[in-house]
Amino acid sequence: MLLTIDHVGIACRSLDAAIERYVSVFGLTVVSQETNAEQGVKEAMLATSSGSSYVQLLEPLAPDTTVGKFIERRGEGMHHVGYAVADVTAALAEIGATGVRLIDSRPRHGSMGASIAFLHPGDLAGVLTELVQPLR
Amino acid sequence: MLLTIDHVGIACRSLDAAIERYVSVFGLTVVSQETNAEQGVKEAMLATSSGSSYVQLLEPLAPDTTVGKFIERRGEGMHHVGYAVADVTAALAEIGATGVRLIDSRPRHGSMGASIAFLHPGDLAGVLTELVQPLR
Repeated sequence: MLLTIDHVGIACRSLDAAIERYVSVFGLTVVSQETNAEQGVKEAMLATSSGSSYVQLLEPLAPDTTVGKFIERRGEGMHHVGYAVADVTAALAEIGATGVRLIDSRPRHGSMGASIAFLHPGDLAGVLTELVQPLR
Repeated sequence: MLLTIDHVGIACRSLDAAIERYVSVFGLTVVSQETNAEQGVKEAMLATSSGSSYVQLLEPLAPDTTVGKFIERRGEGMHHVGYAVADVTAALAEIGATGVRLIDSRPRHGSMGASIAFLHPGDLAGVLTELVQPLR
């Protein structure tokens, strides 16, 4: 069901500083920058040279957002992992049937036009997990 | 320099339980199980269907290991991310020149015969980062 690791989502205090660091150290390419008010973040997607997996840098729009509270509690660091799937609706149905709690019972809009849904970390060894059906 | 995301390393209390969960929920395939005494873990690599990115599950061999202390402090969850590189020695030299602190100044043995090296999370937005030159 999981095709590959699509991205790792990294919570950072300053998006500009994190972009500068990841580009200068690793030579990653910024392919998208967006503000997602619903998720309370401004973010950037940085492509690895394969072009099929990304580093997603996330700066909270305010301290009382999900990512803002994460940083307050744990500091900067890995916030979630996203796996590519062919069909996020079908994947949600299959995963829901195993008893894993779905944060999103229906897909919503993610970065770069993808359809995404989150799964509960409590059922996946503490890992906030995102399913990503990339825009074709 | 970074070819793709090779794996996410997930710290778990019980390797057997985490394998069972990730296989049954996502249909991942266990491709390797090893004990790495140097790193203080027993671990499994679970392949996504691309065959080029993995979920690495890590159970500490004892509470006073790196992963044991991580779980004590934060609970189960994402411990590090590994990126594939073509030449880990060359990558370390380039990255070291940018001022990022190297946990390993020379490559060492990782899972499935890879040559690996870790970079300091303090210089990478809180993310413990591994470079992986897969065995060919």
